[in-house]
Amino acid sequence: MVDLNETMEGIRETCASITQRIDRAYIAECAREGQVPHKLWDLWAETGLLGLGVPEESGGSGGGTTEVCFATDLLHQAGLEMPHGTPNHMSRTTIAKHGSAAQREKYLPKTVTGEECFAFAITEPNAGTNSFKIHANAKRQPDGNYLLNGQKHYITNFVGSNNALVVARTDKASAQGRTGGLSLLIVDTKSPGISATAMDIGAHLPDQQYVVNFDEVVVPEENVVGEPGKGLQALFDSVNPERLVTSAKSLGLADFVLNRAVEYAKIRSPFGTPIGAYQSIQHPMALAKCRIEGARALLYQAAQKFDSGENAGLEANMVKFLSSDALKTAADIAMTTFGGASMDMGQDIIPFYLRAKLAEVAPLTNNVVLGFVAQQGLKLPKSY
Amino acid sequence: MVDLNETMEGIRETCASITQRIDRAYIAECAREGQVPHKLWDLWAETGLLGLGVPEESGGSGGGTTEVCFATDLLHQAGLEMPHGTPNHMSRTTIAKHGSAAQREKYLPKTVTGEECFAFAITEPNAGTNSFKIHANAKRQPDGNYLLNGQKHYITNFVGSNNALVVARTDKASAQGRTGGLSLLIVDTKSPGISATAMDIGAHLPDQQYVVNFDEVVVPEENVVGEPGKGLQALFDSVNPERLVTSAKSLGLADFVLNRAVEYAKIRSPFGTPIGAYQSIQHPMALAKCRIEGARALLYQAAQKFDSGENAGLEANMVKFLSSDALKTAADIAMTTFGGASMDMGQDIIPFYLRAKLAEVAPLTNNVVLGFVAQQGLKLPKSY
Amino acid sequence: MVDLNETMEGIRETCASITQRIDRAYIAECAREGQVPHKLWDLWAETGLLGLGVPEESGGSGGGTTEVCFATDLLHQAGLEMPHGTPNHMSRTTIAKHGSAAQREKYLPKTVTGEECFAFAITEPNAGTNSFKIHANAKRQPDGNYLLNGQKHYITNFVGSNNALVVARTDKASAQGRTGGLSLLIVDTKSPGISATAMDIGAHLPDQQYVVNFDEVVVPEENVVGEPGKGLQALFDSVNPERLVTSAKSLGLADFVLNRAVEYAKIRSPFGTPIGAYQSIQHPMALAKCRIEGARALLYQAAQKFDSGENAGLEANMVKFLSSDALKTAADIAMTTFGGASMDMGQDIIPFYLRAKLAEVAPLTNNVVLGFVAQQGLKLPKSY
Amino acid sequence: MVDLNETMEGIRETCASITQRIDRAYIAECAREGQVPHKLWDLWAETGLLGLGVPEESGGSGGGTTEVCFATDLLHQAGLEMPHGTPNHMSRTTIAKHGSAAQREKYLPKTVTGEECFAFAITEPNAGTNSFKIHANAKRQPDGNYLLNGQKHYITNFVGSNNALVVARTDKASAQGRTGGLSLLIVDTKSPGISATAMDIGAHLPDQQYVVNFDEVVVPEENVVGEPGKGLQALFDSVNPERLVTSAKSLGLADFVLNRAVEYAKIRSPFGTPIGAYQSIQHPMALAKCRIEGARALLYQAAQKFDSGENAGLEANMVKFLSSDALKTAADIAMTTFGGASMDMGQDIIPFYLRAKLAEVAPLTNNVVLGFVAQQGLKLPKSY
Repeated sequence: MVDLNETMEGIRETCASITQRIDRAYIAECAREGQVPHKLWDLWAETGLLGLGVPEESGGSGGGTTEVCFATDLLHQAGLEMPHGTPNHMSRTTIAKHGSAAQREKYLPKTVTGEECFAFAITEPNAGTNSFKIHANAKRQPDGNYLLNGQKHYITNFVGSNNALVVARTDKASAQGRTGGLSLLIVDTKSPGISATAMDIGAHLPDQQYVVNFDEVVVPEENVVGEPGKGLQALFDSVNPERLVTSAKSLGLADFVLNRAVEYAKIRSPFGTPIGAYQSIQHPMALAKCRIEGARALLYQAAQKFDSGENAGLEANMVKFLSSDALKTAADIAMTTFGGASMDMGQDIIPFYLRAKLAEVAPLTNNVVLGFVAQQGLKLPKSY
Repeated sequence: MVDLNETMEGIRETCASITQRIDRAYIAECAREGQVPHKLWDLWAETGLLGLGVPEESGGSGGGTTEVCFATDLLHQAGLEMPHGTPNHMSRTTIAKHGSAAQREKYLPKTVTGEECFAFAITEPNAGTNSFKIHANAKRQPDGNYLLNGQKHYITNFVGSNNALVVARTDKASAQGRTGGLSLLIVDTKSPGISATAMDIGAHLPDQQYVVNFDEVVVPEENVVGEPGKGLQALFDSVNPERLVTSAKSLGLADFVLNRAVEYAKIRSPFGTPIGAYQSIQHPMALAKCRIEGARALLYQAAQKFDSGENAGLEANMVKFLSSDALKTAADIAMTTFGGASMDMGQDIIPFYLRAKLAEVAPLTNNVVLGFVAQQGLKLPKSY
Repeated sequence: MVDLNETMEGIRETCASITQRIDRAYIAECAREGQVPHKLWDLWAETGLLGLGVPEESGGSGGGTTEVCFATDLLHQAGLEMPHGTPNHMSRTTIAKHGSAAQREKYLPKTVTGEECFAFAITEPNAGTNSFKIHANAKRQPDGNYLLNGQKHYITNFVGSNNALVVARTDKASAQGRTGGLSLLIVDTKSPGISATAMDIGAHLPDQQYVVNFDEVVVPEENVVGEPGKGLQALFDSVNPERLVTSAKSLGLADFVLNRAVEYAKIRSPFGTPIGAYQSIQHPMALAKCRIEGARALLYQAAQKFDSGENAGLEANMVKFLSSDALKTAADIAMTTFGGASMDMGQDIIPFYLRAKLAEVAPLTNNVVLGFVAQQGLKLPKSY
Repeated sequence: MVDLNETMEGIRETCASITQRIDRAYIAECAREGQVPHKLWDLWAETGLLGLGVPEESGGSGGGTTEVCFATDLLHQAGLEMPHGTPNHMSRTTIAKHGSAAQREKYLPKTVTGEECFAFAITEPNAGTNSFKIHANAKRQPDGNYLLNGQKHYITNFVGSNNALVVARTDKASAQGRTGGLSLLIVDTKSPGISATAMDIGAHLPDQQYVVNFDEVVVPEENVVGEPGKGLQALFDSVNPERLVTSAKSLGLADFVLNRAVEYAKIRSPFGTPIGAYQSIQHPMALAKCRIEGARALLYQAAQKFDSGENAGLEANMVKFLSSDALKTAADIAMTTFGGASMDMGQDIIPFYLRAKLAEVAPLTNNVVLGFVAQQGLKLPKSY
């Protein structure tokens, strides 16, 4: 439902070439075995999709958030989820915008060819969405380098990544303000002092998440991205595109799981009539479709607004809410449609049901999102 | 949130000039006294807004559904509802497209200047949304004229209109098919044989609805619009724009009532804190805002698709559902915000609460809308 | 679904004798004309139902909250709403428990015979549910009498009542605590200095609500109920029975409006099949029935607990929430079932739709109710 | 909230003695390892709880559905789920009521002591809730014995059970009617010709479910329970108690998961205030509590009605709906409360979220339940 210009048509063809060579069954298998979907990553690289959103001077294919969202949407409509693509993309767009020329040259091209991959490490136990409470710290040494200590958790594909963009406190004095004193560090995941343990995550995602401990890890001075102590400000540029790309995933997955249920409902006929002819099945499906398309229309409107340089923060948050809501509606009626059979992992429905709930609470819980919309969109007072 | 081109900017200025001269209090007063808002109609006429959507060769200002939706949206955001505008517009666009040159010349210009107004009469007791069951009939007489008999109800502003576009059966033989045998007749509302009784409608709309009886009413042969017996096909062209304009109304009203509640919630402080700081008030408000903007994004996407000549039937139905849902969400939290005071008619909140429910069930109930989305959008079997 | 003992069977028969002699059409007519339903009040009096919940020594029929709920439930199942019965009952049970022997003797018997009626006046503009903020005050005079000044609003049937139980501040010094310094005064509604203006309430209730101004109204010393300055404590005894009786009303009305819609859905057949066979109509009806019966089971359990002398505050609040939710579910699907025809006041459905929303926000908004359940039932911290 | 008589107090003490010796962590571990919770089964046996609902003459402790529900409710409030208890109980109550004296003597006492366990096998692929479509068949042989062929799936703990009560078609001729021609057979799970394969069920239940193939399995003539060809009628007696016991499980689990979330919300404070003080967390928790207690009140009312010999089918279905709805509400807000951490299997929240959805669709989907309520409770026409 997007007004396709030429670029978009190219993206559509590229995505079609991928969905012809790989299908959801492969992703489901990766999820079952706790692996990242390497074949899918390779196809992203091979087709040039991995270069989307990276400036051409850094070896990328250019394009903005709109194009990244469109490719993400299309591939997820085929169930081709690749969780570690997001932290990789978020890290490199931050480096592209705030990194030094040397950093851009050293790190970005390899993320386009797929040779290397970035993790992103901000979340800590007890800090939640409150960056005030980040405890990981990196102390400046006399030689200019930093010594990093602390713990991060829920770090997607840390072990499978070459580097991680880590948020840590470098300056206690300026830590008064919410965003003060935090810096962004590029950390080699194989550095001495790092230990990572896979978490037991029940969401059936095709990836691994890790608890990562940093114990006196030496980070070279030249690995600080942007101005020391102003890391969060740099990250803020990535927040809205992240919301939008996350929403594109949710909407793509929503269409996929809805279509799976629709196909099942056309065939399943315990009383002779296909259950898809029952309004108790059909109407929630139509409701899900309405919610998907409403959210999608706002997604592309917001992405274009962002790409044109305007502030799309309010729209990005509204889209995040609406897309997770649409995915939840779709996944819920899919479970209902499959009935008891939804519990059979061979049906591959439960992963979407859990994924939908995850979309509601992460990367930011919808309660915070609604608070943002209330304050920014309706000028209501803060509620927490 | 619309991509404004020059025309749109002009519409915005025109609407602003209207909202500066008239406010919601006037509409509320009209509702209380069961009057149509003549002053608002006059301003539509005076500013040229009444010509929107009518071709320039018929005296109109041109513009498509997008422009009509935009003006409708903006004025309803100020609470300036004018129910009889819709049947008037639906009738004249049908005449513009399917009427003869003589009909266009005779009827259209006066609907642009505001001198005359059209009612639209299709609904009958027991027929509901099923046009199969239309019983009103117009028998061809030897002199070529028709004799119209039958009853219509819920006819908005019939008595205040000069003419009505009436749907009646002219051909029993071809009545086998759902859409066969029905014709569109332009009927002078002052014709002998017509009696109209105001209904006791509880929705607090600024208009009147009527039960209209047609008893041997003579309708001249030249008043048939389009081909006799193919009236419904002609109407189908109007169905999708009607859905879209209706949705624009719902979304505008949703913003209006939500903003009313937001302002109240910033002040009302029974326990010292404004209730707008409570999440139980604030989050449903933000939810309403998300739903409004998701529906609105799809509305303008669908309107542009329609205006470009594509089939936007699926989108128009999805927007109808989403916009009524958004209005219901907004009106419900508005009632909650005002609490017991919502029952005080002086607060002017109840009309929106009832209006929201009306938007859910009319002009087509959302259950039929969801069925349409299921069948057309998801290819599910018919459920009724 | 109540375990009926003999008393209950008697109540059932009494209620049946009333519903045979008067029907909903009379109540709807009273609502239309803004009258209290005197004929229904007379039947309550005549059959002895008006004596329920009043001790036998004060001329009543005895019985506890269970019996009052049961009669209320049954009559509302027939649509026989009588709003002014509640303030009358709340006032007299307070007098029965906290009043002097002289007060009991003077006032109670006439409320049983129906000769006299009580209004109840606590609500003030801006005070909401916060009794801290009550401004009406009654200053002790040298002769021991009080001079009452202040304004109350939303006072049901004030003009039609002989006396009102008025909550006013008698003691500024002790007004520090939330409940301190407030007294209950029996005020003759015809006293000099009282003026009452009917409010324009849109809820289509068969009663009138008033703004009442008290200007230097003399209230005799002997008209203070209970200990001066401890009026709220006395009222607290009435809060839980009020919640339960209010819930019985909601549940009775829910059954009534649901049954109305069910009967309509069995007949209405725009496409040949009765719409009651469509799951989009039928399932929400069944949902409403489930919610009604779940709430009703808890209602009678809570009433019996209260009548046995235990604290049933938590249950009473849960029932208040559940019963208003059940009524809203029932009224909403009833509106959907009637579709556009729901707007016709002759169908008498809108009053239930508004009544349901009113049950959600009054006498206490469900947001406060949920807060109470969270704090008392789940030991969560205060949220406002 | 149950009116406890002496028996109930005894059950409460027994359950307390169990919850002191075993906790949820053990059940979670069983779920992780795909084991049935043998220690819990042993405690049921040891304390005599396993004898509840079995007549004393068969070695049981007596008691009716009310008592079984109460024990089930209490143990599930501590998270002590034991899925294979239900098919065991359903099988033996059917044998107790419809089995021969010899069958009762042979099979029942060992299910009380815990030495033996029953599986229950009715579900087949494609048959869903439609017993018309059962294909498993048992042909009478010249020697009077039966040869059983067919496939069942989702059979809980088949391999761990000694016998299974199997529903199979014994009489094609009478298979015209929905319930005709089906018989109940006691089948030794170790019989030659049986093969069972564990399914990959994603619900994290502490049990295993199996696909079971019966290939020319010899079933002795004396193993038919009740009259051959009338097996479904016999099962119907078990349907309502099964609904009620299932509901007791749902409500117990709902309290457990809600309390887990409440405790977490009292501590978790990313912004300084415990999140349990936020209305966006607290109010859904209170809503869950309201729904739990409404459903529970109706549960015990229905159980007592059933135990008194009345038809409680309508109430049992309403309770099934309400209890699964309550569990879903509780599990959903629990997930929201834990946020991203909900995905950590160590938190043991996901199992409840999936369990809630399972309660919605099994043993009978709520859509069928609502249809039943509509037809039996509201006399609406069949919708499928």
